[in-house]
Amino acid sequence: MDLIDQIQNTIDSKTKPVGSLGTIEEIAKKICLIQKSTSPTLKLPKIIIFAGDHGIADSGVSNYPQEVTYQMVINFLNGGAAINVFSKTNSIELSIVDSGVNHQFEYSDNLVDAKIDLGTKNFLTQKAMTTKQLENCFKSGKEIIQKISQSDTNIIGFGEMGIGNSSAASILMSYLLDLPIEKCVGTGTGITKDKLKQKIKVLNDSKQFHGPINDTYEILQTFGGFEIVQMCSAMLESYENDMIILVDGFIGSCGYLAASKINPNIINNTFFSHKSTENGHQLLLDKINATPILDLKMRLGEGTGCALAYPVIQNAVNFMNDMATFENAKVSSQSND
Amino acid sequence: MDLIDQIQNTIDSKTKPVGSLGTIEEIAKKICLIQKSTSPTLKLPKIIIFAGDHGIADSGVSNYPQEVTYQMVINFLNGGAAINVFSKTNSIELSIVDSGVNHQFEYSDNLVDAKIDLGTKNFLTQKAMTTKQLENCFKSGKEIIQKISQSDTNIIGFGEMGIGNSSAASILMSYLLDLPIEKCVGTGTGITKDKLKQKIKVLNDSKQFHGPINDTYEILQTFGGFEIVQMCSAMLESYENDMIILVDGFIGSCGYLAASKINPNIINNTFFSHKSTENGHQLLLDKINATPILDLKMRLGEGTGCALAYPVIQNAVNFMNDMATFENAKVSSQSND
Repeated sequence: MDLIDQIQNTIDSKTKPVGSLGTIEEIAKKICLIQKSTSPTLKLPKIIIFAGDHGIADSGVSNYPQEVTYQMVINFLNGGAAINVFSKTNSIELSIVDSGVNHQFEYSDNLVDAKIDLGTKNFLTQKAMTTKQLENCFKSGKEIIQKISQSDTNIIGFGEMGIGNSSAASILMSYLLDLPIEKCVGTGTGITKDKLKQKIKVLNDSKQFHGPINDTYEILQTFGGFEIVQMCSAMLESYENDMIILVDGFIGSCGYLAASKINPNIINNTFFSHKSTENGHQLLLDKINATPILDLKMRLGEGTGCALAYPVIQNAVNFMNDMATFENAKVSSQSND
Repeated sequence: MDLIDQIQNTIDSKTKPVGSLGTIEEIAKKICLIQKSTSPTLKLPKIIIFAGDHGIADSGVSNYPQEVTYQMVINFLNGGAAINVFSKTNSIELSIVDSGVNHQFEYSDNLVDAKIDLGTKNFLTQKAMTTKQLENCFKSGKEIIQKISQSDTNIIGFGEMGIGNSSAASILMSYLLDLPIEKCVGTGTGITKDKLKQKIKVLNDSKQFHGPINDTYEILQTFGGFEIVQMCSAMLESYENDMIILVDGFIGSCGYLAASKINPNIINNTFFSHKSTENGHQLLLDKINATPILDLKMRLGEGTGCALAYPVIQNAVNFMNDMATFENAKVSSQSND
């Protein structure tokens, strides 16, 4: 019998009407296929936050000053952010990566030094990063996962932090899905209508300046950021290591989008954790035919959606392993009348 | 300062854009109001499954024979059902109540004897229960919560099991919300189109037989079942004890609906765990203006939605207690430009 039939038979033998656990069954099935087993496991779950600064922040696209990126990194290290609370609650290990924050940190076990530069250039008038920096992003993203793969970890959630990165994500989405900026932008951290107009103008001016680009790598180089490209590379390497990939919200989904252009098979290992209220995210999800696990009206990033979706995934894996069958529980199955 | 302002100030002082945690913030706020505190707690979470049989099962409304009710109770007691797996995964204590299963059990610490009778009468041609039985349902539902309230438990999820109980729930919804049967029925455990037609006919014939009824208690007495009425009573008593009430899917929501007709304030303590794919549930939720926490395309009952939603609630409570403020984390708050 094929693995997929074995998995379906195992699911349908459980003491419940066929299909009645919906998404839980779908999640279990997908993990079984990733792990080529009808007895899947989740080991040492991890969330990685990639943090980087963006030159575009100079163009007034956010409510917050750039210094908030490094302040939030310190908040992550001190355990005070939302992602700290959610990771701890759900027994997920948290790891912070300095992808290119505009600040000199003291590195530690908890803060990985993968700094490419002190933030990207402003893509309004130049490429966000050099070819070399792009290569370095891919290299360091890959190395981060290779190091983790030496442990037992088989599930990773991808978070991000970076003032201005919803602007970078929006323009990436616009290029990668060939959509007008207006359909890809949102209010990010919560900007006003006037500021949203400004954000749209800046992004349209940036498109005007750079003109059409079709190559995924060139799109990433042009608009960045370091944290998005490292995340993209890390997702690709997680796929190569048969890991389960948890995509967070809008910015994470744009990193995933780039990764899926490079290797479309990555979808087989990927769960979308939650639907962000950031305008653009639903459209992105529709375009790639993805249904997120949660819809909690959040728009924070940091991997918070991954952390909150993790218990659902844990329940799906335990369902697969621990539920009784009709036969061993001596429950009558469906009658045929 | 009013409590509600204190709560909102506490939430808005956390290191995140205002409102960016969406439903998590709403859940935290509601629990703070229930507990009259800005430092809420969840104590000894519990799920109670009320199980009962239904005379209407004789009229061919389900795919499964009535014996499945008692077999599943035994499955619950042996730890093999979906709700066992999910309760265990999420550290929730599970308690099973024999509300009126058509089987003589040996009772134990895990199986509460609240048996009213060996199943209700078939409401196609008579009232499901007597006035005395209805009174006993309310009395025993109340007592079950009073006993639990002697422990520290402050959050209870309400599950159910009973072959035929989606038919009872549908006709309750039809009466309580004054809607045609066709809008209140679904495929339950997964019946065919033909069987669904039969179910609709049986329920319309039942309405025809009993005619208009306006009194909530009389509606409950007429259509039952014992597990739905006990659940309704238990929800009302949980409210009286300032507990958090987790409603499961379609049948649980019909039990809640009856409870809310008796005491509309119960909404202040209630979370709807998940949206069932059972047709009728979305309409019911719309009618009472409720948004469930999860939408996982499930239709199983047993309290499975409560168990899966619990971690989200736990995360919301921890968010309220454990996240840093802008001030103590030294993060710059929103600029005013």
